[in-house]
Amino acid sequence: MGSEALLTNAIPKPQNIENVAADSSQISENGQPIQNCIMHQLIDQGNIQNGHHIENGSLHENADGFSVRRLQLSDHKKGFVELLGQLSPTRPLSQEEFQERFAELVSMGPDHHICVIEDPVSCRVVATGSIFIERKFIRGCSKVGHIEDVVVDKGARGLRLGHRVVKHLVDHAKATGCYKVVLYCKPELREFYQKCGFMEKNVQMAFYF
Amino acid sequence: MGSEALLTNAIPKPQNIENVAADSSQISENGQPIQNCIMHQLIDQGNIQNGHHIENGSLHENADGFSVRRLQLSDHKKGFVELLGQLSPTRPLSQEEFQERFAELVSMGPDHHICVIEDPVSCRVVATGSIFIERKFIRGCSKVGHIEDVVVDKGARGLRLGHRVVKHLVDHAKATGCYKVVLYCKPELREFYQKCGFMEKNVQMAFYF
Repeated sequence: MGSEALLTNAIPKPQNIENVAADSSQISENGQPIQNCIMHQLIDQGNIQNGHHIENGSLHENADGFSVRRLQLSDHKKGFVELLGQLSPTRPLSQEEFQERFAELVSMGPDHHICVIEDPVSCRVVATGSIFIERKFIRGCSKVGHIEDVVVDKGARGLRLGHRVVKHLVDHAKATGCYKVVLYCKPELREFYQKCGFMEKNVQMAFYF
Repeated sequence: MGSEALLTNAIPKPQNIENVAADSSQISENGQPIQNCIMHQLIDQGNIQNGHHIENGSLHENADGFSVRRLQLSDHKKGFVELLGQLSPTRPLSQEEFQERFAELVSMGPDHHICVIEDPVSCRVVATGSIFIERKFIRGCSKVGHIEDVVVDKGARGLRLGHRVVKHLVDHAKATGCYKVVLYCKPELREFYQKCGFMEKNVQMAFYF
C-alpha cells in the first residue's frame, strides 16, 4: 500500500520523553535519556558536512535534525513496527522475527531499501517508506522502482517528513537506474503525490486469499 | 505495467509455420519443424498425468496443448521479447543480455516467477506474465505478490490464455504464502480482472525520470 496513513496537515504533538527513557536502548551510558540522538549518531559517523547529511551519496537537508537514513536493526526498539501499525494491521514482532526479515531484505542490496526518519529528541522512528527495484526484460532490461509502506507518525505530521521520505526513495530509484517509480495510494492522496512529482496512471486491482 | 496489451475478445489468427521453421532452434534433428513441441517436451519430462500438466505442484488443464510453464532460456528464440513488445516499447535483446537478466531473476528463486504459454503448433511464446514477491514487516512479516507484464499475443487472443496466466500467477503467490496479490491495469481491463477474482482498489501514481 502506497501511503494509507500519510497525512501532511495534522498538528505535531509533544513527544513523550518518559516513554523514551523507559526503553533501555535509549539510555546513555550515564543513565540519562539520549537527546538529539540522530545528531549524535551522525557526528559519530563523521557524515555531517556544512549542516547537511550525506547518505548514499545524496544530500539531505538536516537543519531541523530530522534526517532520512536507512533502516537499522536498532529501529526495532525505536517504534518502527508500531509506526507501520498506523498504516496496516501489524502485530508486534519479536527481536528474532524482526532480525530475520531485516536480514532477508538487506541481502537484496540496493534492490530493497527501507528508509526512516528518527525524531532527534524522542529518538523514536516517526516516518518511513520502502522501495524495491523490479528488474524487467522490457525497455532493454529496464528497472522500475516500487514505493510501498510510506507512513508518518500521527504526532509528527505537518513537518513535510512524508515529502522527504518520498524524495529519498525516488532518489534511490534514480541512482539504481530505474526509468520510473510507481506506487498505489488512496484517491485522497493524489494531490500529495502530485506535489512530489508523480502523475496519476492506471487503477490498482487486488486479490485477497 | 499490469496488462496493457491483454484483450480477450480478439479473433485468433492462423500461425505462420514458415516463420517458425526459419528459426533453427525450432528445427528437429531430422530437419523438420517441430510440431506440438510443448506436448513433446512434457512427455519427455514425464509430467503428464491423465491429460493434465503438473508444474510446481499445480495442476494445469492441457486439453488444447496450451500449457502454462516457467520461462526458459530457450524462449529468447521463441519470440518472448517480441511478445513483450506488444505491451511496452522493447528493443531486441542479444542472447547474452537475455541470459544475464534471466540469471538475475532465477537467482531470486520463487520470489520472482515468469510464466509463458507456448503455442503447441508454432512453438512460439504467445502469452506471458510475471510476479514478484515482496517481503514486508506489516501483518506479521507478510508477503505480497505483484503481478506485472501480462500480455497475450495479438494472434492468440480469445482463447482465455490471459485467464490461465493470471490464475497461474495467483496460484504461485498463494503457494509462496502471500496474503494478497496486486496489479495495476488500464481502466478498460477492470472487468477482465474482476472475472479473475480481483477487486478494484486504489489509484496508481507514477514518476518518470
